Amino acid sequence: MTPEQSVVATAVQSWTINVERADKLFAGLSESQILQEVAPGRNRLVYLWGHLLAVHDAMAPLMGLGERLHPELDAIFLTEADKKVAVLPSAAELKKHWDEVHGRLLEGFRRFAASDWAQKHTAMSDDDFKANPLRNRLAVLLNRTNHLSYHLGQAALVPKG
Amino acid sequence: MTPEQSVVATAVQSWTINVERADKLFAGLSESQILQEVAPGRNRLVYLWGHLLAVHDAMAPLMGLGERLHPELDAIFLTEADKKVAVLPSAAELKKHWDEVHGRLLEGFRRFAASDWAQKHTAMSDDDFKANPLRNRLAVLLNRTNHLSYHLGQAALVPKG
Repeated sequence: MTPEQSVVATAVQSWTINVERADKLFAGLSESQILQEVAPGRNRLVYLWGHLLAVHDAMAPLMGLGERLHPELDAIFLTEADKKVAVLPSAAELKKHWDEVHGRLLEGFRRFAASDWAQKHTAMSDDDFKANPLRNRLAVLLNRTNHLSYHLGQAALVPKG
Repeated sequence: MTPEQSVVATAVQSWTINVERADKLFAGLSESQILQEVAPGRNRLVYLWGHLLAVHDAMAPLMGLGERLHPELDAIFLTEADKKVAVLPSAAELKKHWDEVHGRLLEGFRRFAASDWAQKHTAMSDDDFKANPLRNRLAVLLNRTNHLSYHLGQAALVPKG
């Protein structure tokens, strides 16, 4: 493995480890556990799960990997705060979407070479990218991995049992 | 900038952004604010700050960047849980250590080429590294950036004002 291949594979692995951690945490909850708040008055676990799913689904067009699979999640989990939307998808639906969204992303990521990761993401203009070449696809991947860790830290505060 | 340089610089930038976010959050707190718990019965902000500092200080020897600067922090912020140690460093001391520890790391990181990032970290045996070449220095950087984000997410739950 060249250093170039190694650093890129390491970043994808860091993403995958955290996606799996989230999957294990959220998909293992009962329909009542998933309605718990992470702290008094704060977001419920189900909201964090759907929020991560919507944010990750939106990575596909940013990375040149195709259209969104579930744009309908934004109105529930991104535009609106938690508890503003009465009817949420079931845990079974969220799990199904989660697997689709992450399966598709990972398939794309595994095909990217270092030169693909260093390319601009689609929300950037050519001029902006010339001024800041670090706003590339890898920056999106690392940012979203950190965002995922951020909410995993919150989810971990829910009292066990 | 080659793709190789770009991906490595992007990872260092992701680390730096989160270190600065933490610095802004923790160093801006008063001595009483810093004693708040992130959620009822959970870690206090001061513990998270010292915990991150101890973990980051330990990155230097792992990355071949020299000995620990503050190994004395481990007994307070790593080995022991929050509220077990009565006397903590002051916020001013933590801030001073924070700047030293992160200044030294960043200086080292900026000198690393992709081939340096792809090297094994010092806690790995040669055989283990042969079996898993992704347990390299970059994996340590990304893991610690995620760990930092994890605790930033928790710190963000503290009621404002």
